[in-house]
Amino acid sequence: MSWNTFGRVFRMTTWGESHGPALGALVDGCPPGLELSEQQIQPFLDARRPGQSKFTTQRQEADRVKILSGTFEGRTTGTPISLMIENTDQRSKDYSEIAAAYRPGHADYAYDAKYGLRDYRGGGRSSARETAARVAAGAVARLVIPEVTITAYVVQIGDDAIDREAMNLETIGDNPFFCPDSWAAKRWEALVDRARKDGSSLGAVVECVAEGVPAGWGAPIYAKLDADLASAMMGINAVKGVEIGDGFGAAALRGEENADPMRPGENGPEFAANHAGGIAGGIATGQPVVCRVAFKPTSSILTPVDSITREGEATQVRTKGRHDPCVGIRGTPVVAAMMALVLADHKLLHRAQCS
Amino acid sequence: MSWNTFGRVFRMTTWGESHGPALGALVDGCPPGLELSEQQIQPFLDARRPGQSKFTTQRQEADRVKILSGTFEGRTTGTPISLMIENTDQRSKDYSEIAAAYRPGHADYAYDAKYGLRDYRGGGRSSARETAARVAAGAVARLVIPEVTITAYVVQIGDDAIDREAMNLETIGDNPFFCPDSWAAKRWEALVDRARKDGSSLGAVVECVAEGVPAGWGAPIYAKLDADLASAMMGINAVKGVEIGDGFGAAALRGEENADPMRPGENGPEFAANHAGGIAGGIATGQPVVCRVAFKPTSSILTPVDSITREGEATQVRTKGRHDPCVGIRGTPVVAAMMALVLADHKLLHRAQCS
Amino acid sequence: MSWNTFGRVFRMTTWGESHGPALGALVDGCPPGLELSEQQIQPFLDARRPGQSKFTTQRQEADRVKILSGTFEGRTTGTPISLMIENTDQRSKDYSEIAAAYRPGHADYAYDAKYGLRDYRGGGRSSARETAARVAAGAVARLVIPEVTITAYVVQIGDDAIDREAMNLETIGDNPFFCPDSWAAKRWEALVDRARKDGSSLGAVVECVAEGVPAGWGAPIYAKLDADLASAMMGINAVKGVEIGDGFGAAALRGEENADPMRPGENGPEFAANHAGGIAGGIATGQPVVCRVAFKPTSSILTPVDSITREGEATQVRTKGRHDPCVGIRGTPVVAAMMALVLADHKLLHRAQCS
Amino acid sequence: MSWNTFGRVFRMTTWGESHGPALGALVDGCPPGLELSEQQIQPFLDARRPGQSKFTTQRQEADRVKILSGTFEGRTTGTPISLMIENTDQRSKDYSEIAAAYRPGHADYAYDAKYGLRDYRGGGRSSARETAARVAAGAVARLVIPEVTITAYVVQIGDDAIDREAMNLETIGDNPFFCPDSWAAKRWEALVDRARKDGSSLGAVVECVAEGVPAGWGAPIYAKLDADLASAMMGINAVKGVEIGDGFGAAALRGEENADPMRPGENGPEFAANHAGGIAGGIATGQPVVCRVAFKPTSSILTPVDSITREGEATQVRTKGRHDPCVGIRGTPVVAAMMALVLADHKLLHRAQCS
Repeated sequence: MSWNTFGRVFRMTTWGESHGPALGALVDGCPPGLELSEQQIQPFLDARRPGQSKFTTQRQEADRVKILSGTFEGRTTGTPISLMIENTDQRSKDYSEIAAAYRPGHADYAYDAKYGLRDYRGGGRSSARETAARVAAGAVARLVIPEVTITAYVVQIGDDAIDREAMNLETIGDNPFFCPDSWAAKRWEALVDRARKDGSSLGAVVECVAEGVPAGWGAPIYAKLDADLASAMMGINAVKGVEIGDGFGAAALRGEENADPMRPGENGPEFAANHAGGIAGGIATGQPVVCRVAFKPTSSILTPVDSITREGEATQVRTKGRHDPCVGIRGTPVVAAMMALVLADHKLLHRAQCS
Repeated sequence: MSWNTFGRVFRMTTWGESHGPALGALVDGCPPGLELSEQQIQPFLDARRPGQSKFTTQRQEADRVKILSGTFEGRTTGTPISLMIENTDQRSKDYSEIAAAYRPGHADYAYDAKYGLRDYRGGGRSSARETAARVAAGAVARLVIPEVTITAYVVQIGDDAIDREAMNLETIGDNPFFCPDSWAAKRWEALVDRARKDGSSLGAVVECVAEGVPAGWGAPIYAKLDADLASAMMGINAVKGVEIGDGFGAAALRGEENADPMRPGENGPEFAANHAGGIAGGIATGQPVVCRVAFKPTSSILTPVDSITREGEATQVRTKGRHDPCVGIRGTPVVAAMMALVLADHKLLHRAQCS
Repeated sequence: MSWNTFGRVFRMTTWGESHGPALGALVDGCPPGLELSEQQIQPFLDARRPGQSKFTTQRQEADRVKILSGTFEGRTTGTPISLMIENTDQRSKDYSEIAAAYRPGHADYAYDAKYGLRDYRGGGRSSARETAARVAAGAVARLVIPEVTITAYVVQIGDDAIDREAMNLETIGDNPFFCPDSWAAKRWEALVDRARKDGSSLGAVVECVAEGVPAGWGAPIYAKLDADLASAMMGINAVKGVEIGDGFGAAALRGEENADPMRPGENGPEFAANHAGGIAGGIATGQPVVCRVAFKPTSSILTPVDSITREGEATQVRTKGRHDPCVGIRGTPVVAAMMALVLADHKLLHRAQCS
Repeated sequence: MSWNTFGRVFRMTTWGESHGPALGALVDGCPPGLELSEQQIQPFLDARRPGQSKFTTQRQEADRVKILSGTFEGRTTGTPISLMIENTDQRSKDYSEIAAAYRPGHADYAYDAKYGLRDYRGGGRSSARETAARVAAGAVARLVIPEVTITAYVVQIGDDAIDREAMNLETIGDNPFFCPDSWAAKRWEALVDRARKDGSSLGAVVECVAEGVPAGWGAPIYAKLDADLASAMMGINAVKGVEIGDGFGAAALRGEENADPMRPGENGPEFAANHAGGIAGGIATGQPVVCRVAFKPTSSILTPVDSITREGEATQVRTKGRHDPCVGIRGTPVVAAMMALVLADHKLLHRAQCS
């Protein structure tokens, strides 16, 4: 079953294929009276936009968003907000190769196994282009949670991680990697360039922090804030792992090391540590919400890989075309958008029951 | 908002507190005609049951399940299956301490921040006792997916991981740790015993493999099989991380290393590797579905930790009582149950759209 | 598919069969801090309870509700409230007749066609006994909407309607018919008694009015307040029609007759009429919400009706046993309960988006 | 809360305002492999299109649908189908009057009470123009249920009902009223014309019959087929009542009159009557599904009605502009579309659980 809606109360439904005429997001449940125009959404799309450096795909997409409904005189009306982005750089290339054989690591075979047919042009619905719609919807979600500041950045490319001591979030915008460590950013230039030239690709780890989330947001037992974040992040293309707070590192700690001691503070408790990543029992504690996301290396590589044709014959596949050598980079604004969508939903859920 | 339902078509809703009269799960959407009796559910509850070794909590619960509805003459009728487990060993202890101060790492403060009051007896709704209901519902889910074999086991306790070369899944039941490496099991006896005696606790990593999942199950874009698994696992008490396939390890691989080459096989493609953990684009590929889950160390420890009272005064908390020194151990059957619930739901979702 | 949950944010899931050990309702999403005990639910169950006059079924059920979770020290905690009612008067009768042949007008054939098997004892899940669970949940819903007063009453039995001029809502409790016209109540005694003695049955029309619903509750476009009421009412056993405000009568009016003129009032507008039944565009206008519900005559009658056996052979069915000669009477508290459930849900939905 | 999605598995989400740039429907969960092009949707939109006779509004809208996603090479792919209809005849009129005062019978006041602001141009989101999106989605739904034939027609305008003896469904397309009785159609020409010239309006009753619905579709207890139909129909603009089968008429029958006797047939049972309208216990019986829907008279009339301004001052409102004198007429294709949407959803729901 196809299930293209995310959220319970603040809901986004996305649509569109990589090489169709357009793609979009429909945002339902947004509170009324918020100032909203295309100008507030566009910067987030621009941050994710392809073709901006040699470290991302050379596909050129303007990614201009249009608001087709749900606003009046510059404010949201409470009715569904229809956001549309037209596709402009779908190359009229020859798709016969990708139509005939399954690209390993891609969803080609799985879609065919599920649906019996697929739109093979550029990956169709499974293309990461769909994430443009999420970023647009995420920009609307941010308006719902002005008390929250969301920051996402890359902490590892390939096996090269940043130095936590050298981390400076203000430098994220100064390099093409959303990297908070300028020394690492330098190293990554060479690393990514090498992979690109090799026709290879690299994985990455993205970290996302939300500050200002009030204690109390969250929804036990099956819409826990961390469970919803896990779903949101794992659903991003190429993501294979999600951690909250210390994540897998917590498994190696002892109870007293992992405790987050509390002491009286001016506005609620102050915590001496944040191993929990700001969430306990699925509910925000008031500390920063911290999430880490692992992206696999881009599956589209020039190196030939064994595969099969639609008819089940052996073949080899080299994926030519315009691809990101490291999808985690452009995935960073998508991670931030999903964080915004989850938090907006939980703010509304919380006040439904507890206001 | 409290949200106690899991699943879209095969749906489980759980209820109950640690020290209330009972807890339960309500299973809705189960296909009719399946043989079901308490005897089929009980073994799964027994595997999770407390008090069975010195490595788990000494709380004694019979955890006898009763089926109150939804079956007739030993078969499911298609109507909701009400499963109830009575609580029998709620000690009439003095709860004034836990009522007065927040246990660090627990959900005490977060529940109070959300709801303004909480059932503090044994953690109330946030207690891991709730997972008994999931295990019962998971046993029903398994009946829906007879084509699938699910195995869950512990691969790491504290910082001591199993040796993958020595792994033998047939030995999982031979030790109290669901450990597939008998040498590791030996080491863990000492490790866990030491932590227990120290009044400390340990984290763990649990792996779960589902074999026999047909290619095609899954639901793009926002109910991807991996996204639903991530939600299911991250929602288990004490879980802080989830990986599919190579997970965070994939971030350090290059594209050609991470590829899962395909070749023609007798029944669909054969894969030369399974870095993807059996899922591509959110849809099963027919390979084993592989998931790994990180449990933090039990928050209930005898070591005093700084905290605050409900009134916001500084205090210290030592959590006495009967606790698991390593919650990941008894979490293992819960991980398997959540895998079953996700797969049962996706089987039904798939045939709704694609049969 | 079986779908036993009602509501979007304030959600009720019911379970149980007519002759199983128990039935129940699970209420999720209830705000915390509300005073709740069995004593607040019981009176509503008592109003619906069978065996209280010769005009209803002689089945004797205590219908004692137990709260198994979700409260602490007499208040709701925000976690799921599990309500259970044990069945006590399931007669150990011979069910071979009802097992063998389909009772016309009942769900017997439809359940068999859907599920391939059915619990035939007393109608199983399709029995009106399930409505006890709704009434219990409805009692909880009322606590969520203290600003609203809900009144339900019978306005027609068979073809004998009340005199609107003589209507006095204070007399509803003075007769066994929830009738607001004492002359009609007198006539109905004879009417229903005659039907009962004839082995026949009668239909009824129930009206329900909710006063105090604030302007603004409701949810365009597909969870309109009136659409949700229509779903809630049409889903009650034996209901075949639902009207809001003038309902079918409005079809015969001209625009100027059907208008509800407004004039300035002290607290928002005052309306000179209420043809709309308090709802415009799916949203409450602040006027009383008015709904009317048509119950068909009880299908269980002593008069023989042509039918078929499970094997498809011709037969005749006379439904012996203890039955309501007019199900609309005991349906009245169920109508009120469904009104409460819809309004509680919409109150929470409204404040999620618009608070 | 705004809630713009209809359906559980086959889901439609609509968006758009009367005078915005476009409106649309997003269809999710549609099975793959169905032939679908704009040409298959357009005839249904044309049947609902305004400006086709003097008995409907003179607004001119081409109502051309575009498919923006979800198809490939003329077939559905299983991914979301985005349907868009551009608005072309939004007159640049002066809206200051409608902005300043509430039109009685319209949703103006209710929207303002809910959201604090509203798009007043042509009624914004509450305009019946939104139903174009439902009709487009309904055309897709019909492809999912080729075994079903849906027919909708007007059986009453004002207080003038058709003669059931003279009813001939083949004549529905021969008159501008979807009327199956050609004598009634003649009378209605004069009736509607008179109302139009008077600046008044008329109500109507629409009947919808679905033949070929297999026994077994439906979903107890809270997604009953009749409950979902009631919700679907009551949610259409201007609808105030819904009946299944005999509806309110059943309340006046005795049990033996209302019974639908069964006898052995070639393909399952044959029924001697259909008082139940093809549904028992919320599940289809295999008989035709019969539904009747009451439309109130159009609220937009030239006759002045007392009202208030946004500021709460007394005023009078005459609604000028282009309006349908009887919205029930153009509501007829909408009723049919909602029937198709409900049945498509229930077909998929049924096979999820019971295939």
